[in-house]
Amino acid sequence: MIRHIVLFTWSDDATDEQKAAVPEALKTLPGLIPEIKSYTYGRDAGINQGNYDFAIVADFDSTDDYLVYRDHPEHQAIIAGHIKPIVASRAAVQLSL
Amino acid sequence: MIRHIVLFTWSDDATDEQKAAVPEALKTLPGLIPEIKSYTYGRDAGINQGNYDFAIVADFDSTDDYLVYRDHPEHQAIIAGHIKPIVASRAAVQLSL
Repeated sequence: MIRHIVLFTWSDDATDEQKAAVPEALKTLPGLIPEIKSYTYGRDAGINQGNYDFAIVADFDSTDDYLVYRDHPEHQAIIAGHIKPIVASRAAVQLSL
Repeated sequence: MIRHIVLFTWSDDATDEQKAAVPEALKTLPGLIPEIKSYTYGRDAGINQGNYDFAIVADFDSTDDYLVYRDHPEHQAIIAGHIKPIVASRAAVQLSL
């Protein structure tokens, strides 16, 4: 299994509407990309100081399935249209489990 | 459910032995902290450039259970003894799912 993990911080001038549009867009992806086996995402829960703002954890049966997701046009459209305009920093890991 | 996600980069002078000691230590924690419902961790799989080096994803039934883990002496001992000596950067999010 490949577990893809990505965390973002949003820029200071990102609006609440822009931040809310990210999960609204992401929720369409499991219906469009059957290679996604599990898809969890959301804003930080606010328990600790100094955290990143938003996280995605996505599970796939194989590296090839992860690559289908990574390069899928609908996913790339969300990155270009909703994430890149407001992202300040990004941290990612893929785990092979 | 609380999903705790943390990513690390290791310092350039971290040795392979120091890096390998981190998962070796972490694997003891599910046996010591029953509040951990799922615990996945490991080094980056090397699929993409620019990634962080290591990730942990830990699931808990509640915020209180996550806090037991966060503050547990055995967990804190691993942070102090194995992670802090070699960490260069850290990114974390807790998701409420």
